[in-house]
Amino acid sequence: MKALVIGGCGFIGSHVVDHLLSQGVRVRVLDRRAEMYRAPLPGVEYVMCDLSDTAQIFEALVGVDAVIHLASTTVPATSNMDPVADITGNLIAMVRLLEVMREAKVRKMVYLSSGGTVYGVPQTDPVAESHPLNPISSYGIVKIAIENYLFMEHKLHGLEHVILRASNPYGPRQGHTGTQGIIGTYLWRLARAEPIEVWGDGSVVRDYIHVHDLAALCHSALTAGATGVFNAGSGQGASVNDIVGHIRGCVSGDIDPVYKPGRGFDVPRVVLDVSRAKETLGWRQGTTLAEGIADTWEWVQAQLARNSGA
Amino acid sequence: MKALVIGGCGFIGSHVVDHLLSQGVRVRVLDRRAEMYRAPLPGVEYVMCDLSDTAQIFEALVGVDAVIHLASTTVPATSNMDPVADITGNLIAMVRLLEVMREAKVRKMVYLSSGGTVYGVPQTDPVAESHPLNPISSYGIVKIAIENYLFMEHKLHGLEHVILRASNPYGPRQGHTGTQGIIGTYLWRLARAEPIEVWGDGSVVRDYIHVHDLAALCHSALTAGATGVFNAGSGQGASVNDIVGHIRGCVSGDIDPVYKPGRGFDVPRVVLDVSRAKETLGWRQGTTLAEGIADTWEWVQAQLARNSGA
Repeated sequence: MKALVIGGCGFIGSHVVDHLLSQGVRVRVLDRRAEMYRAPLPGVEYVMCDLSDTAQIFEALVGVDAVIHLASTTVPATSNMDPVADITGNLIAMVRLLEVMREAKVRKMVYLSSGGTVYGVPQTDPVAESHPLNPISSYGIVKIAIENYLFMEHKLHGLEHVILRASNPYGPRQGHTGTQGIIGTYLWRLARAEPIEVWGDGSVVRDYIHVHDLAALCHSALTAGATGVFNAGSGQGASVNDIVGHIRGCVSGDIDPVYKPGRGFDVPRVVLDVSRAKETLGWRQGTTLAEGIADTWEWVQAQLARNSGA
Repeated sequence: MKALVIGGCGFIGSHVVDHLLSQGVRVRVLDRRAEMYRAPLPGVEYVMCDLSDTAQIFEALVGVDAVIHLASTTVPATSNMDPVADITGNLIAMVRLLEVMREAKVRKMVYLSSGGTVYGVPQTDPVAESHPLNPISSYGIVKIAIENYLFMEHKLHGLEHVILRASNPYGPRQGHTGTQGIIGTYLWRLARAEPIEVWGDGSVVRDYIHVHDLAALCHSALTAGATGVFNAGSGQGASVNDIVGHIRGCVSGDIDPVYKPGRGFDVPRVVLDVSRAKETLGWRQGTTLAEGIADTWEWVQAQLARNSGA
């Protein structure tokens, strides 16, 4: 089997590529920019282009059995600042991609959606896939529209589609600009001896999934023969204080977070029900939060040592 | 109160304008084209422009208390032919409109969504507002995304919003190109002594709402002080054969439909549960299907007489 991984040079994508290669899947990567944290991998074909370049996309689909689409031009925290760019860069790009895939006769897609934004404020704990969709960010609204176009393509044109509604992924190679998740942000700041900030009392609970587990789930989604929507998380809640506690366990020296006023838009608790992915895709989570944070810390330190040695 | 009616020269919009005027609401109309079936109304301000012209939209909002948005650049039957145009013309236009409304401090919108496309294949009969949203047309997907942006604008910026998910509206001034509904199409064809066509055995059931009732509902939505999503139909199912029967009751001469093979994409039955609109908005349906078809037939004949006399 050969897969085109869109966004394969990114944080999640690079791990998906690693996992696919380890499972004997041949990989072509399509991304807007080259690998950030490593040299291009031998045996992987790289196509550098934008999703708006449909001619090049068509060429990139030749000889491919399935697409794993992980790219996004926006992140949840900033999507509301320019919803038109969000719609253009992600929704219209997906509609065009589906048209090109139809022409190229590639009839399988695994798509990374968002378990943290499509449901809005949870009415249940944990949140199952059937939970009402009440997003309060452009990011979540666009993800739902994309999911709906995938479902329509399935119904009208037979696309096999697996939608993975990911919770909060973390792990090595995550960006550290402060918009992509607190674990990476905290560890990078600590590695640079900068203070870390907690909004509110640290009780906000999220569902964190290690990127290795998410990569394994993308592979299961590619091969299991199922179609539809699946939550992709750990199924377990961790508070910001829990995270700080785990970080204390692996970082030497004192950690003294700066507590700031709570942010009105932070939902108190979002934990996904992931039983459907386990039962239907045969996927199992392999990394505990303590292990995952230790693993990420090791990577951050290695990066820092490399950068200061360069 | 003064309302801006977007799409106020169209089929539904022109009736909404009539109803608002009859209830003492002052009206400004914004549309891409002038009235088709009548001269401009005295006392109504007309702004002819496209929704992409945000500068002119801002001007059109000055002095207005609420917006009733009825315009669409697409119809369900053809939206899948060009989803990108559907997204650009309707979704992006709405996002821009919401931004301009925020600047202009107009904090109320009644929006016409689609009860026939957002639910997909019904899992219940009748279909309530809480029914899962599984659209299989771009038209329905875009309507849901627009609803979600309205909900977000409500949550984050206090917009009062009433979403009306209309079933199949019919009545005087409906287009007769064959894409906007069978009652108008049948009556126009019969008036011109052309044959009418039935796809399948005529058992397909839909929920038809007379445009006068829908216009009254738009007024209730404007004034009732409620917010959220409401089905807008008759709550009653009528088959194509029922429609043909009612038409036989008012048209002189034989009606002999041409029966054609059924279309795979026609869902057998869609009837809306409209109890929420009745209970919360205090709205009542006033026109039976027999009365409404007779009324529409009268209008078609008058149009034809006018055109042949011209």
